[in-house]
Amino acid sequence: MKKVSAGIDIGGTNTVFGWVESNGDFIWKGKISTTDFEQPEEFVSEVSRQLLDNLGNNEAVGVGIGAPNGNYYNGTIEFAPNLKWKGVVHLKELFNKHFDLPVLVTNDANAAALGEMIYGGAKGVNNFITVTLGTGLGSGIVSNGNLIYGHDAFAGELGHTIVVMDGRECGCGRKGCLETYASATGISKTAFEMTQKDWTSEQVAEAANNGEEWALQAFDKTAKILGFALSNVVAITSPRIIFLFGGLAQAGPLIFDSTRKYMEENLLEIYKNKIQILPSALEGVDAAILGASALVWKEIS
Amino acid sequence: MKKVSAGIDIGGTNTVFGWVESNGDFIWKGKISTTDFEQPEEFVSEVSRQLLDNLGNNEAVGVGIGAPNGNYYNGTIEFAPNLKWKGVVHLKELFNKHFDLPVLVTNDANAAALGEMIYGGAKGVNNFITVTLGTGLGSGIVSNGNLIYGHDAFAGELGHTIVVMDGRECGCGRKGCLETYASATGISKTAFEMTQKDWTSEQVAEAANNGEEWALQAFDKTAKILGFALSNVVAITSPRIIFLFGGLAQAGPLIFDSTRKYMEENLLEIYKNKIQILPSALEGVDAAILGASALVWKEIS
Repeated sequence: MKKVSAGIDIGGTNTVFGWVESNGDFIWKGKISTTDFEQPEEFVSEVSRQLLDNLGNNEAVGVGIGAPNGNYYNGTIEFAPNLKWKGVVHLKELFNKHFDLPVLVTNDANAAALGEMIYGGAKGVNNFITVTLGTGLGSGIVSNGNLIYGHDAFAGELGHTIVVMDGRECGCGRKGCLETYASATGISKTAFEMTQKDWTSEQVAEAANNGEEWALQAFDKTAKILGFALSNVVAITSPRIIFLFGGLAQAGPLIFDSTRKYMEENLLEIYKNKIQILPSALEGVDAAILGASALVWKEIS
Repeated sequence: MKKVSAGIDIGGTNTVFGWVESNGDFIWKGKISTTDFEQPEEFVSEVSRQLLDNLGNNEAVGVGIGAPNGNYYNGTIEFAPNLKWKGVVHLKELFNKHFDLPVLVTNDANAAALGEMIYGGAKGVNNFITVTLGTGLGSGIVSNGNLIYGHDAFAGELGHTIVVMDGRECGCGRKGCLETYASATGISKTAFEMTQKDWTSEQVAEAANNGEEWALQAFDKTAKILGFALSNVVAITSPRIIFLFGGLAQAGPLIFDSTRKYMEENLLEIYKNKIQILPSALEGVDAAILGASALVWKEIS
């Protein structure tokens, strides 16, 4: 009998979940379509049924959930624009009908940071930041060994710090947010501005790897803004490592090398040459489940 | 016999110190000229002698020190530009020759935040920021009930986040740092740019209170940049309260009202109308000693 934690990652399209040991080994994993469920109650019942059917002879210690707009303090999803379920979804309450265990909820980027801390490159590191570069830009900021949740659990919105005055319009209704530049969507937009053609972030990376000047410049511009924003967040939380995670981080040296360069250029002297920018050690399909399950190990450790 | 903590605030010109009860009542306080001491050893001996001579019948529980460039992890002052003592001063070690007690060191802004937490307006508040608006701009950021020190104890340098690209030259060697705009020095500079005359920040406040347009505009410009910077730090740490402390905060509504307005204008929707900007409850000459002594109560509580 092994002790296992459930990790559930709720995405706009699919939900992946599984049972995970404290060393990161999977006992079982599954997947369902999030959009198949009109009501969160049916969704929670189905995920719970599958998890319980596949627990086997193991001992469940808790349920961790990563979700868009997941609120750690309330155990809820609150007004997630990419989900069918509107308003406030009382996720913890719903799961507790199926599991008499701790149920913990947080957002995707915080879950990624916890995954890094429990299973990945941040083991034993008390001060670090995980930046997720996907459609948007998320962040999980760890200080003194704990996530910074703030007074309302909404801390860590690095993607919505304003980095360019009167800059690009953001989905949040404001202008110049970091995520409008430093994200898969952001680099596509930059590439469009340079070429008047549509490109995915992967296509920009491919063109840059083939030495095309416009694509190299698009990466340089992205890294310049990201490096600048990171230099400011360093002055606030002074991390030892910054992990870049998600789609755009797959571009490897294209994004890492110049982000490092621009961050260092902008850093206050006392922080120079101290901070690593590293790829996540958990990159891949299971990272989201691992991150969600890490919530439990972090809480009960 | 009362339990008391020593609070020592080391300034470039004077050092103030005293014995403080956990409720903030003073048993005794003293003051010496920092610049009278060529060597830190003599300085520490004199401060210790005066403290021990005035302990009376009370029980000392620890020594807390607020100092420029004070490093909490190392118990040191490191390369403080405004002190005679160069390089690294091993303050904890020196004080431990006189006191067989916990000796704790931090910088002035962190001490101010701890003072607010233990004795002031942040009692029971787990997420808040203290911003000190003096010659420069310092900050102490509290998350989950603890100061954010970062991996090297140098976190919380909000004054050195860059807010204006290629902006004013900063003493740190970079350009556009927040403290070059939002500080006593910063508003003097703004006033000079508008009038081509030298003004202290107090004179600018006086002129603004007399309705002089240039002075009102100088405050507005200062508050606009400060409010913007605060909106970005809110997205990172989501505090419940932001305390403004120090010289420029004395200007009252001139600085508070418009800083609030500009912060709200720039905030991401989820943070709007949630965060208070308040004056410190500890403003005055003894605040620095209180802040330093709070280090001890925080640690042993």
